Parts: sequence; C-alpha cells; structure tokens
Amino acid sequence: MSQYLFNLKCEDRPGIVALVSTTLHGLGANVLSNSAFSEPVTSTYCMRLRFEVDLSEEKMLAQLQEALQPLGAEISVRNVEQVPNVLVLVSKHDHCLVDLFYRTTHNELAINIPIVISNHEDLREHSEKSGAEYIACSTSHGTEDLEAQVRQAIQNHNIDFVVLARYMQIISPELGAELNGRLVNIHHSFLPGFKGAAPFQQAWERGVKMIGATAHFVTESLDEGPIITQGVTSVSHRDSAADMKLKSKDIERLVLADAVKAMASGKVFLCGAKTVVFD
Amino acid sequence: MSQYLFNLKCEDRPGIVALVSTTLHGLGANVLSNSAFSEPVTSTYCMRLRFEVDLSEEKMLAQLQEALQPLGAEISVRNVEQVPNVLVLVSKHDHCLVDLFYRTTHNELAINIPIVISNHEDLREHSEKSGAEYIACSTSHGTEDLEAQVRQAIQNHNIDFVVLARYMQIISPELGAELNGRLVNIHHSFLPGFKGAAPFQQAWERGVKMIGATAHFVTESLDEGPIITQGVTSVSHRDSAADMKLKSKDIERLVLADAVKAMASGKVFLCGAKTVVFD
Amino acid sequence: MSQYLFNLKCEDRPGIVALVSTTLHGLGANVLSNSAFSEPVTSTYCMRLRFEVDLSEEKMLAQLQEALQPLGAEISVRNVEQVPNVLVLVSKHDHCLVDLFYRTTHNELAINIPIVISNHEDLREHSEKSGAEYIACSTSHGTEDLEAQVRQAIQNHNIDFVVLARYMQIISPELGAELNGRLVNIHHSFLPGFKGAAPFQQAWERGVKMIGATAHFVTESLDEGPIITQGVTSVSHRDSAADMKLKSKDIERLVLADAVKAMASGKVFLCGAKTVVFD
Amino acid sequence: MSQYLFNLKCEDRPGIVALVSTTLHGLGANVLSNSAFSEPVTSTYCMRLRFEVDLSEEKMLAQLQEALQPLGAEISVRNVEQVPNVLVLVSKHDHCLVDLFYRTTHNELAINIPIVISNHEDLREHSEKSGAEYIACSTSHGTEDLEAQVRQAIQNHNIDFVVLARYMQIISPELGAELNGRLVNIHHSFLPGFKGAAPFQQAWERGVKMIGATAHFVTESLDEGPIITQGVTSVSHRDSAADMKLKSKDIERLVLADAVKAMASGKVFLCGAKTVVFD
Repeated sequence: MSQYLFNLKCEDRPGIVALVSTTLHGLGANVLSNSAFSEPVTSTYCMRLRFEVDLSEEKMLAQLQEALQPLGAEISVRNVEQVPNVLVLVSKHDHCLVDLFYRTTHNELAINIPIVISNHEDLREHSEKSGAEYIACSTSHGTEDLEAQVRQAIQNHNIDFVVLARYMQIISPELGAELNGRLVNIHHSFLPGFKGAAPFQQAWERGVKMIGATAHFVTESLDEGPIITQGVTSVSHRDSAADMKLKSKDIERLVLADAVKAMASGKVFLCGAKTVVFD
Repeated sequence: MSQYLFNLKCEDRPGIVALVSTTLHGLGANVLSNSAFSEPVTSTYCMRLRFEVDLSEEKMLAQLQEALQPLGAEISVRNVEQVPNVLVLVSKHDHCLVDLFYRTTHNELAINIPIVISNHEDLREHSEKSGAEYIACSTSHGTEDLEAQVRQAIQNHNIDFVVLARYMQIISPELGAELNGRLVNIHHSFLPGFKGAAPFQQAWERGVKMIGATAHFVTESLDEGPIITQGVTSVSHRDSAADMKLKSKDIERLVLADAVKAMASGKVFLCGAKTVVFD
Repeated sequence: MSQYLFNLKCEDRPGIVALVSTTLHGLGANVLSNSAFSEPVTSTYCMRLRFEVDLSEEKMLAQLQEALQPLGAEISVRNVEQVPNVLVLVSKHDHCLVDLFYRTTHNELAINIPIVISNHEDLREHSEKSGAEYIACSTSHGTEDLEAQVRQAIQNHNIDFVVLARYMQIISPELGAELNGRLVNIHHSFLPGFKGAAPFQQAWERGVKMIGATAHFVTESLDEGPIITQGVTSVSHRDSAADMKLKSKDIERLVLADAVKAMASGKVFLCGAKTVVFD
Repeated sequence: MSQYLFNLKCEDRPGIVALVSTTLHGLGANVLSNSAFSEPVTSTYCMRLRFEVDLSEEKMLAQLQEALQPLGAEISVRNVEQVPNVLVLVSKHDHCLVDLFYRTTHNELAINIPIVISNHEDLREHSEKSGAEYIACSTSHGTEDLEAQVRQAIQNHNIDFVVLARYMQIISPELGAELNGRLVNIHHSFLPGFKGAAPFQQAWERGVKMIGATAHFVTESLDEGPIITQGVTSVSHRDSAADMKLKSKDIERLVLADAVKAMASGKVFLCGAKTVVFD
C-alpha cells in the first residue's frame, strides 16, 4: 500500500468528481482526504486528494491518465514518500534560507533543497554545510547568466518549484513565463500596501500599527503576483523603521515556510490572478 | 436547478467517495465544492459537498438514500435556500443574543431564531422585537420545567440545533444525550484553562497575557465538550478582571457566531471527543 | 480625592518630566500611572498620566497651568468621572453605530453620544431609542448644510471629538482643519492598501488572504490620515467579495471601538503624519 | 552623552515620580521615555525610564542612589550600550537555542550568551560555533552537579538572567529562590491549560483549535510561575499531535524571544504572582 497526492485542475463541468472517484475506486484505491473547489472567476475546478492503493506506480499512473483524458486536465500524482526538489534563489539576507534549511534538516518541512543560487558569496558556507550545492553568479551586468544557471539547475536536479528567499533581483519575463505557477517569492510587506522599495521607512513614516509579509507567485510584475499566504504582526509608535524590519523578518520566515509547505503538499492551485490554497 | 448541502458521516472504508459521486453523477448533479476527511481516532469518514441538480427534492432524496444505504451512514441533505431553525437559550447576559439577532436580521447569518427560552425576563423585549417568541421559565427549583419547554419548542419549531448563548445553567444529562451533536455552548474562557467559575478573576490573579473563548458541543460536563471554534485576544497588566471580562465579550460574540455559522452551513462533524470543522 | 487624566504635548526638551512631576507633587497629587514618549520625527514630547489629588478642580487647574506655562505645551486635564461627549456621523450602514451604542449603554465604553448626524433617515430610530438626538440633513446638494449642523452640535453639546462611523461623505478641508486631531474615521480596508472605492471587490480579485480595517484621523485626504488602530482577519479562496464585506464589518466594529476607547481615555497623540497611542 | 535604562520597583506611595524626576533633572538628565504603573494586588510601583546624561557613570549612580535612598526601592541603572549577559540551559531540543543565537549573532537581540549548560552533549557544536562556552553535565543522578555549574557560571560570567530554553529538568527550590525574578522558562503550552507532560497528545485528543506557548518566571512549581509573554496559533482537525508539536515550535521561538527581549530591555517587573511588562 502506498499513499499518493493527486492534484487536478481543469475547466469546470459536470462529472469531474464522479469520473475521478470511480476511476480511483476501479483501481482499488481508498480516498483518505479530499478537497475540491470551483473557482468562479476563472471557472476552474481544483481538486486535491490523498489516496492509498496497492498497485505499481506505473500501472496506476497509466490507468489514471487514460481514464481522465477526456477532462483535458492538468494532473499530477506524487507518492507521498517522494519529496519535492526545490531550488532556492537568494541574495545576502539569510533569515529565510536559514529557516528553510532548519526545517528541512529537522524533518519539519518535507522538501529537498539540492541547490542554492545567489548573486553573492555570502550564503555559501551555510548552504554547503546544510548539504546543498551553491552557485554564486554575479548580476552586476544583468541576470542573464544567473538565469541560465537556474534553467540548468532545474534540469539537473529535477526541480519541482523555485523559491525566491529574499533574492532582490527582478526575474526576466521569459523565466517568469517558463516557471508559471512554480516560482514563489516572499515580499517583506503586506501587499498590496507598500509595493516599492524601503517599505519599512514608508510604514514608519505612515505610522502603521501592523506590518506584514506576503508569499506570492511571481508574474511579470515582481510584487503583484497571485498571493499564496500572508501574515501580520503588531507594531507601535515605539518601533523604529529598523525595529519594524526586525519584526518583519519573523513574519517573512513563517509566511514563506507556510507557502512552501502548502506548495510541497500540493495544496496550491494557480487560477488566473488568484490562488486556491486548501487547508 | 437547486443547490444542496450534503453531509455524510460513517465508518471509514474504501469506496465511499466513489459511491457518493457516481450516485450524484447518475442524478445529473454537479458538485460545486467538496471536503472530506478521515478522522483517525474514531475512524470516521466525514464528507460535505455542495451540488446543484435539476430534479425534484423528493426524488433526489429517495434515490440518494437508496443508493447510499449500504454505507450505513448518517446523511443529511438540505436545500441551501432552506435556512436552519435555531433555538437559543439565554439567562441575563445579552451580548451573544444581541449579536446573533443583529447578524440574522442583517442577513449576515443564514439561520432563523423562532424562539428564545430563558430563566429570566430580561431579554424578552429584545427577542420579541427581533421577531422571536420568548419563554421565561424560572430555574430556581431546577431546570426540569425549562427543559420541558425546550423539548416542546424543538418539536413545535422544527429546530435544527440549540445554542446556549450564556445560559449559565447546567443541561441535564438526559437533554444533553437527546441533543447530542446539536447543542452548542459558548464558554467565556480559552478551554481547557480556567474551567470553573469566575475565570476572569482567576486569569487576572494569574497575570495571563491572553484571554480567549471557546464554542463547544455540550456533553455531560458543561465545559468539557468537543471544541468547535476558539479565539483569543491580548491583555496586559493594565487590564483589571473587569476589563478582561469586557474584552472577553467581544471574543465570545465572534467565536459563537463563527460556530453557529459553521453549524448552519453543515461544516461541523462530531467525532467522539473531537470535531471536524471544514473551512 | 478625585482622579484625573493629564495629557501634555509639546516640543521635546530637557526638564519636562521634572517640572510636571514636581508641580504635581507640590499639589499633593499621587501619580498612579504614567506614560511618556519622545516622538523622533516631529520632536514632540507626549505625556499621559493619571493622578489623584485632594484639591478643588479649579485650584488644581490654575496652579498646573501657571506652573507649566514655560513649556508652551498643549495640556488637558480631565476628571475621570467626567465622560467625553462624542458626536457620531453616519450614513446608512448601522454596524459601527449599533456597536458604539451597545458599548455605551452597557457601560463598556465611557463616552456620551448626545447626538448623531446623518445624510439619511435610516438610523434615526435606533439613535433616538438609544437616547441620542438625531439630525438628518441631505447631502445631495453638497455637505455644506450638514457640516453647519456639525459645527452647531459641537457647540451645543460641548463635543470632545467626532467619529465618522461609516459616514461615506468627504469632509471639507475647512471642517477637517477645525477638527484637527478630533475627527476619527473608520476605513473598511487595511490602509494603505485598497484606498479607493469597492475595496472588497479589489481584494477579492486580487485573492488576498487577509483583510483589515483602519481607524485614523481625518486630514484633507479622507483615507490618508494618521493611523490610530488597525485589525485584520483571515480570508480564503472560499470567501466571495460579499463574504469579505461581512467579515470586514466585524473588524471595523472592533477597530473603531478600540480607537474610540483610546481617544476617550486620552491615550492618543497626533504628531504630524503619525500617532502615539499609549497602551 | 550616554543613554541609560533606569528601573525602579518599590512599595507604592506619593512622591515617587517627583523624587526620581527632580533627581534626574538635577543631574542634567533628559528623560526620553517613561513608563510607570502601580500594580494593585501587591501595591508595587514599577517604573522604567530611558534618559541621557552627560556625567560619568559612577558619579551619576552615586548621586542617584543617595537621592533615592528614602524610597527603599530596588533600583537598577544600565548603560544602553552595555548588553546583559545571559546563561542558557538546554537539553536536546535545539529550536529555541538556535533561534536565540541567530538573533544575537545578527544583532537582532541585544544580549550576550557567554555560556550554555546542558545535561546532554547534543548542542555543543552549535553553541561553540556561535561563540559560547558549553558545559555538559549529566543529570541522570540528579541536578545537583549541574546546578553547581550554573551557580559557578553566574559568578564567572557576571550573568544578568538565566533562560531555560527547553531544559526539561526541574529546577531545585533553592536555585529557584536564588534566581527569583531572573529565571525565565518557555513552556510548550498555553498556560494554564495542559500543564503536565505530553501537552500535544492532550491537545490533539481534546481537539483544540488553537495551541500556544508561554514564557514565564520559574518558581517552585515549574509550569506555574508568573507569565511574561504568550502566543497562539491555529490548528485544525487535519493536524496530528506531531503537526501540533511542529507548529508549537514556531510559537515557542517567538514567545521566548519576546520575553528575552523584554527582560534585556528592562521592561519586566515581577510583582508577586504576576508580572508588569511594559511595551
């Protein structure tokens, strides 16, 4: 008996649940949990289920794909033992990367991080000590070389999705398009407020009473992609812009870890400008 | 086309999803959303779905019940237009009752409150003005008479579930058993802390930094039933026991409203000492 | 022995605390609590203290004012028994007004609301039943007449501050200037995000995972004034724009009540574009 | 000009603020911020202020102590540049220790951790790499030897306060008494709920919807001391006891870091069974 995560996304229409569940039942599978939602703006049906089945993986996949072909759906099936491979891009700030490595090395977050790519050398030691390859590639003359490394790494390491853990560079529209729905950024603000640079200086001058962080998919506009997770914390007049920055780091870590965990467990569906994120 | 909420609870075993979804598909129904969870402690399968179908309600129900009979499941199907009837029991505190009436009269909470029963006269005016019948029944010689009124009201008004909105009396074990899974209480503390009387005095003497409230099913022990929703708020050394009591009222209102909303939309499943509450 | 709230705001410089506290000590006053903060952007010293003294109010005030004259400070002293008078402006939405009246009539919020002014008749019954005068004044040809009523009411009822409880009209720059630091608005969004109209439609299309509300002072730009209190709540893909609007109402009520309570207890200091809000 | 943190705790009585502030004014000091609170249960006056003064530290201290002697107060004055020394006791769990070191090495938390003492070897490498001495001392035959090391370390390293970062052993009543008000523990539950062992198993069986953590002073009873900071996070029926444990680790880290930061900045006052914690 092996357990699998099954994800399906297709245009909504009658009969999807019936077709999926009779197919699974026909394979002798037992559905352990099940979430489905019909996203109204894009008319997209999103379905996630966990099932167990006593059948070879190839056979099961082949039969599933054949049976569900009429739906024209995006389907993914993953053995729960098989942990996703994640490429992390960073710059100099280490708090999100350190947190992701802490969680993976302590078996708190079921992902592999085989490789980290940065435009600086700063985080090499920590990455390598944590068991990841590290590539530093200058972006002083543009991000072309670095993005070539990203493409190469995705192939070499069979990468499932990419995380920008305070990467601080703009992703090219081409790479953004290639990684549609597989590229997650952490933004150090509670979007859509304070989109631009120096959000803490802005927040401090504005005297806000709460600050936040947002994990989102990257689209053409770095800070405007579909939101995956958000978090906030309270601040007061006693907090300087520097204090807010520190408090934000705690939120960024948690919000990004939540988003990566949701991605890794197949709970995130990208539907146009929005996401469906199952609990 | 009418929309229905479908709830199913039964012992977990293979084929439940398949049987339900093929049956619905056979009726021409379209599943709009779907949540299912296999509760491990009690091995209970909990399933909630919303579907639309173009069929008379009686026919649909008859066919569903026949087809799903082999599951030996508790099943309920409700037209989403048909709002649940709720009996509210109160004593003298009005904040939860006022809040529930505000939400129902402003179409924020899809329930009917046809009747309020209390051991005092205090809340008659507000209840009657809000369109509910009001019965006051003294409990100075025990709750037997009042509970007889409750049983009568449940029959007369076709009550779906009962809410203790700061009722302050102990429910008899008999009535508790009769209303198993249909009797919701709001407790002015973050259970399991501060179970007994005067929780705010206790909390203040203990110098806690957060207080909370808990909505739960009533079982034999008033404050110990399965938890449905919980909420907290911050307090500090500046808050007296009386201040905490005021802050608690805001949390009680919200936590109870959340629980009632979840009950009314068929999202709450009682499984032994625990609940499954879908989002 | 009477208790007083003392507020002082002046340009920061050495000796303020010493002068205030020796003056109070000289009057035989006992300081019960004390908060002070030097706001760095505007170099403003904000001080709030609660003291008790056995002296006639006039004598105490006269001596305080004379002694503290060298500071050139804005000073206010209020007997804690003497509750502030608040004018509330509304339109058609009742949730904030109903909540404020609930709290005042249940002695949860120590303010008087002698009068409510609106551009519609809708909330007359509830206001009058709660003991307030109600003036409806059409704004279909501009807010001039209504604002004249506001000025009149402020004089007649010795109003301490004004609350816009979903008033939905733009305050004229003149009235805004007259009421500088005494005019509080509740905005149904987590500023600075979603400033314009229809914030929930915007939030829904954007797929945000949290929504919020902001109480702020009104300045020339309605939605841009210094922030007093903020709150948030979680939403998900399951929430429609209408669901978000309902959830927001709960936050708006709480955030506005917190701001009004802070105002009423002299904890809010306006310093340029920011506020200092003591706990 | 140097900046100082000044803390005072004494029996409440008239004239405290006046004496302190005139004394400081006499020294030419400028008060930058100021918080004071009269704790009613114990009738204790707690005062914290930050001032700057252009005077040698010894002279300033001598004059302050002489002038304030009549108050019979506990007084501490600390140059803000002079960071407190903290001894951390651990066992095998590393999440709180790793977090404290991350914050200190990144200048996010202004403390020194010169030494870590444990009953196991597990955290030696991380501690030593972070610049701390590490002493492992078995507790299989009681904690006497380890507590002797603690006493020695407190002397050798001029320790200001001690943190139990998941130490898992009972502190002897003697050491508890010696370190009264200087010994902080993190408890992996939202006290006063779930005091005993295996709180997550208890919480899971009870089906709670929120879990929390509590930082508190240690008194005779390990889990019952005065609370300093608390935090919570949401859980659902989908979370196993193991999931709750993981979620709790995030809260424990944050709640302990908040408590240590408050301790390090002189904001925590122990008053009988309660604390006063200024913001």
